[in-house]
Amino acid sequence: MAERSLVFPAAEFVRRTGALQARMAEAGQDALLLTGPADIFYVTGFLTRFWESPARPWFVVVPAAGRPVAVIPAIGSALMGRTWIDDIRTWPAPDPEDDGIGLLAETLGDLVPESGAIGVPMGLETSLRMPLGDYLRLAARLAPRGLVDATDTIQRVREIKSEAEIAKIRAICGIADTAFEAVPAIVAETPRLDTVFRSFQMALLEAGADWVSYTAGGAGPGGYGDVISPAGPQVLRAGDLLMLDTGAVKDGYFCDFDRNFALGKPSPEVCRAQAALFAATEAALATLRPGMRASDAHRILTGALEKEGATPGGGRLGHGLGVTLTEWPSFTDRDHTELRAGMVLTLEPSVELAPGRILVHEEDIVLRATGPELLSRRAPAELPVIVP
Amino acid sequence: MAERSLVFPAAEFVRRTGALQARMAEAGQDALLLTGPADIFYVTGFLTRFWESPARPWFVVVPAAGRPVAVIPAIGSALMGRTWIDDIRTWPAPDPEDDGIGLLAETLGDLVPESGAIGVPMGLETSLRMPLGDYLRLAARLAPRGLVDATDTIQRVREIKSEAEIAKIRAICGIADTAFEAVPAIVAETPRLDTVFRSFQMALLEAGADWVSYTAGGAGPGGYGDVISPAGPQVLRAGDLLMLDTGAVKDGYFCDFDRNFALGKPSPEVCRAQAALFAATEAALATLRPGMRASDAHRILTGALEKEGATPGGGRLGHGLGVTLTEWPSFTDRDHTELRAGMVLTLEPSVELAPGRILVHEEDIVLRATGPELLSRRAPAELPVIVP
Repeated sequence: MAERSLVFPAAEFVRRTGALQARMAEAGQDALLLTGPADIFYVTGFLTRFWESPARPWFVVVPAAGRPVAVIPAIGSALMGRTWIDDIRTWPAPDPEDDGIGLLAETLGDLVPESGAIGVPMGLETSLRMPLGDYLRLAARLAPRGLVDATDTIQRVREIKSEAEIAKIRAICGIADTAFEAVPAIVAETPRLDTVFRSFQMALLEAGADWVSYTAGGAGPGGYGDVISPAGPQVLRAGDLLMLDTGAVKDGYFCDFDRNFALGKPSPEVCRAQAALFAATEAALATLRPGMRASDAHRILTGALEKEGATPGGGRLGHGLGVTLTEWPSFTDRDHTELRAGMVLTLEPSVELAPGRILVHEEDIVLRATGPELLSRRAPAELPVIVP
Repeated sequence: MAERSLVFPAAEFVRRTGALQARMAEAGQDALLLTGPADIFYVTGFLTRFWESPARPWFVVVPAAGRPVAVIPAIGSALMGRTWIDDIRTWPAPDPEDDGIGLLAETLGDLVPESGAIGVPMGLETSLRMPLGDYLRLAARLAPRGLVDATDTIQRVREIKSEAEIAKIRAICGIADTAFEAVPAIVAETPRLDTVFRSFQMALLEAGADWVSYTAGGAGPGGYGDVISPAGPQVLRAGDLLMLDTGAVKDGYFCDFDRNFALGKPSPEVCRAQAALFAATEAALATLRPGMRASDAHRILTGALEKEGATPGGGRLGHGLGVTLTEWPSFTDRDHTELRAGMVLTLEPSVELAPGRILVHEEDIVLRATGPELLSRRAPAELPVIVP
C-alpha cells in the first residue's frame, strides 16, 4: 500500500513544496500552517476519508526550506508514515487539555524566528479546520511572530496542475463518462429519482471510482429548480428533464460535470435552451486562452447565451477543479483572476427557462497555451431522450 | 421533495431550536452563529452534499427567540426554501468584494443588542467553516458585541438524540448490517483490497444508503496497521485479517461500525484477541449507565481487555455518533463528559497484538436509562472465516 498512499512519486511533492517555498519567500512568509484536507493532501500525499470525523485537528507546517513537518493525531502516524514526510510529531487526540496546540506552537516556534511571519489561508474559498479557540490561543503563544494571510501563496501554486495531476483528473472524468452511459438503462429500470441517484453512484464505483463524494441533480417538467439538492422519492414522468451531476474521486482527484436527459421528446423551448447551452460551451472551447481573466470566461459564456436568445442563469458559470470538487477561480463578472496554462476548469453555463426552472451544462477542461482541452467527453449537441 | 428535504416534521426542529435557546439564555448568549454542515442541518433540515464545494460560506443565526435565520448563497435558496426556515437572506456567492459578511453583520446587528453576546462553537471537535479573515472582520464590525464560545450550548443539546433521530441511526445501521453480510461473497469474487472496498460501497448503496461518506479498513497477516487508510491494490491472502469500517448515510444520519473477517482459520493469538474484544464489548453493554463519565466507559473497556490478558490499543475506545461520522464525547481517560440517556455512542475497543498490528471491534448503541441498546446487529463472538 506504500505506493498507493503516496499517489505520486516523491518528486511531485518536492516540486510542489519548492513552488510554495518560492512564493513564501516573495511574500515574506517563513512558514505555512495548513489545516485542511486538500492543502495537506497537496503537500504530503496523505489521503484518507477520515476527515469525515470532525474530532481531531491535523496540522502540516511548510518551513522556508526542506520538507513539510506533520503535527498530527497519533491515529494518523501509520498512514502519514507511508508518505514522503519524515518528520511526524504526534499527540493522543482528542485531548481536552491540549489538543496538539502545545506541540504545534513548539514546532512553529523552532522553525520561525520571533520576527517572522506564518502564513495561514484566510481568504475567499478557505476555512480553518481547527477549533477557533485553539487558533486564537496559538496566535497569542506565537507572538511576536505574526500570522498572515497566505491564500495567494497557496492558490497560485495549487491552481496550476502538473501533467501527473491532469492525468488523474482525466482518469476520473473517463470513469464518470462511463457511468453516465448507464443512466438511460438505470432510469428504465426504476424511474424513481432516489433510486436513480443510488444506482448512478453504483455505476461510478463499478466504473472505477474510489469513492463518490458528490452527487446532486434535479428533475422536473421542462427543467429543474436547483442543482444542489439530494434526491427524493419523486417518480420521473414524460416531459421531465433529468440532470445528474457528480464529483467522483480517484486517487484523491475529482471530476465535476453533469449530464442532462429528456424523458420523452423535449419541448421546442427546451431544445432552444439546449442549443444555446451547447453553443455557449463551444464558444468557450474555441476562444478561451491563457492571459484572459475569469471574468472574461463569464463574458464569453454569457454573450454566447444571449446571442442565442437565452437568459443566462445567475451564479458562476464555471470554476476550478482538482483536489476538491470546486476550486477557485469563479467565472463571474467580479472575479478577475488570471487564467493560466495548466489550470483545470469547468465550463458550466446555465439558462433560466422560467423563474425556478433552469437547465445547466458542464464540461471539464484543462487550459493549454493553445486553448481548452476537454477532459470530460463532450456531451452530445442534442438532449439524449429516454423513453419513459 | 418537500418532505424529504425536511427529513423530520417541523416539530422536531421547533424542539431543537427551543432546547438551544434555553441553553443560550442560561449562558447569556443572545444569538448563535452556525457555519458548519452538521449544526446547520441540525437546526434547519438543510441537507445537501454541496458542502463538498469549499467555495462558499453558509450562515445560520439562531436568535434568542423565534426561528433561525438563514444567510446563505443564492444557489441554496431553493433547497433552504423547502425546510421550515422562512427568513432566508441570500447573496450572489462567491463574491470577492464581500462574501456575505455585510449581510451577516446586518442580520446579527439587528438581532443582538450592542451589549449582547453571540455564541460561536470554538471548542474541542469544532471548526469555523468560513474564511478566517472574514470572521475577524465580522468580529470587528459587530463590536462592542462579543463573540463567545458556544461549544457547550450546542454539544449538550445535539448529544441527546430524540426517538426520531434514533430511528434514523437504527435504519442506517441496519443497512450496514445487510451490506456486511455480502463481504464474504465479495472477497471470494476478487480478493483485492481496493475492489473489496468498491464492492462494499456498492453493497451499502444497494441496501439503501443514500450515500457512503466513509469507508476505511485494513488487512494484514494476523492484524492491520491502522483503521483510517484507503484501500490499495493489495491481494488478500490466507492468514490475513480483514477489517472494513463504514460511515454510510441515510437521511443525513451516520452509522459507524466495523466488522472483521479471517482469511482462513485464525491463529490462536488472534482468537484470544477476538475473545478479549468480544468480552470487553459485552462488559460495556452490561454495565454502562447514564450518570457515568466518558472516562468510565474507557475504564470498563480497558479493564475488561486487561482481565482477558490483552493489551488495549491507544486512542479512544468509542465516541458519539449522529449527524457526523463521529461526535463527542471520547472514551479516553481524559474526557469526563457525563453520559446521559439518549446519547448514541460507539463501543470501539482495540487490542494491540504487536507494534503496528491491531484488531478493533465496533458497535453502535443508544444509551437508555437501563443501559445500552444495540443499534448495530451484534457481531458474532467468533471471527467469521472466509476461505481464501
